[in-house]
Amino acid sequence: MMENNRIWTAALLIIGDEILSGRTEDKNIAQIASWLNIQGIRLTEVRVIPDDDTRIVAAVRDLKDSHDYLFTTGGIGPTHDDITVEGISHALDLPIVIHPDARKCLEEYYSDRGGLTPARLLMARVPKGSTLIKNPISGAPGIHIQNIFILAGVPKIVTTMLESLNGTLKGGKPVLSRTIGTWDGESRIAKTLRETEKDHPDCKLGSYPFFRNGSGGVNLVIRSTDKESLNKCAQDLIARLLAEDLSAIDGAI
Amino acid sequence: MMENNRIWTAALLIIGDEILSGRTEDKNIAQIASWLNIQGIRLTEVRVIPDDDTRIVAAVRDLKDSHDYLFTTGGIGPTHDDITVEGISHALDLPIVIHPDARKCLEEYYSDRGGLTPARLLMARVPKGSTLIKNPISGAPGIHIQNIFILAGVPKIVTTMLESLNGTLKGGKPVLSRTIGTWDGESRIAKTLRETEKDHPDCKLGSYPFFRNGSGGVNLVIRSTDKESLNKCAQDLIARLLAEDLSAIDGAI
Repeated sequence: MMENNRIWTAALLIIGDEILSGRTEDKNIAQIASWLNIQGIRLTEVRVIPDDDTRIVAAVRDLKDSHDYLFTTGGIGPTHDDITVEGISHALDLPIVIHPDARKCLEEYYSDRGGLTPARLLMARVPKGSTLIKNPISGAPGIHIQNIFILAGVPKIVTTMLESLNGTLKGGKPVLSRTIGTWDGESRIAKTLRETEKDHPDCKLGSYPFFRNGSGGVNLVIRSTDKESLNKCAQDLIARLLAEDLSAIDGAI
Repeated sequence: MMENNRIWTAALLIIGDEILSGRTEDKNIAQIASWLNIQGIRLTEVRVIPDDDTRIVAAVRDLKDSHDYLFTTGGIGPTHDDITVEGISHALDLPIVIHPDARKCLEEYYSDRGGLTPARLLMARVPKGSTLIKNPISGAPGIHIQNIFILAGVPKIVTTMLESLNGTLKGGKPVLSRTIGTWDGESRIAKTLRETEKDHPDCKLGSYPFFRNGSGGVNLVIRSTDKESLNKCAQDLIARLLAEDLSAIDGAI
């Protein structure tokens, strides 16, 4: 839902010892960032913190006030290290309650899996006043409270939770991008890149070197919320690189 | 270098619009976390912020004071969006100087690649008082100033920079880990897991569900700085799971 011209921002808080220990490679930053962009919302900060109540409280308070939205991943399962709901309830000074619809989801999900045990019922706890985010994969729903969206840690479950949030958040214009590849190094294209950016105030240019099989080059990414400005800048950048006898390919290498 | 029994901590600051836009999937958190653990240092916070001077200054000041070490990745190339050195110099109130050894590295690296141009010389800038971190891949060195280690963004270059820092940082005992896999869900093993952790105060237990090809289970990770405690806890956890008629496999699934 697009609303006027202002920029809408989000922060992502990843709660998980497993990311900080290096055991698990994060797959959620990129998918949440891409999804937010489609909704017209810019991810402007990510933090990864341990499964620790004090750290969750501090980070939630800080990030929810400085962004339009705060997304969290991880820590909503039924084990002793799943303390996200407690942490966020503390941060918001809200009591924890059993959400009746979450209980119902879990009852249905576990009806042919041994029924709703006390451990499973833990996954129905929410900060008072929350609504639920559907989770067709494993029963336990995500949680929406104020401007906070509490998602699972497992990337596949995050994907389905994001799908169910599609188009429901207020946002602005999505950032569009085009990539121009070059086999010339960053230091050779730096001047052209800087000058091109200066002449296209509606666009931001980023430069991402790569090294593959002994060869290297740079992918130049142009970003803008305006399609026409984006395409003009791309044409201009290609023309300037070629005029300097540098290589320029329309598309990422 | 192990030094007494205290816990040594590090933060990681990832500077890069490309991570926040979803264009590039981060590969540095996991490799830096694993490397730090081998050095006996715990990664206790990660932040990802845009290529923005004000944001770099605020994050650097915050994280360097609250951790033994601060690592940064990204933004040390020769293009206009590479502003990490400026940002960190501002944060530390230090002037930027050309490091003579960095100039020499770059002169050598570019001797058969067109020589040291003004754009390339930008990569020799450091906050005054810095020492260099070797980069055999692309010439431009990393930078060490106070408790801050400024690394490249390209994961392969980060790998070689970490190699050259191997064993040079003060640290404590590395955290050891063992994984026990089970095909039973989190809600079935939650009680056993919680009770096992309570009886092994030297160990921390984490629970990481997975879903693969329509089946699911949980990898239970035990962490401790003491090998004997770790092995005792693993044996006990397996015995308790089997006694409850739950599946238990020694190793990750």
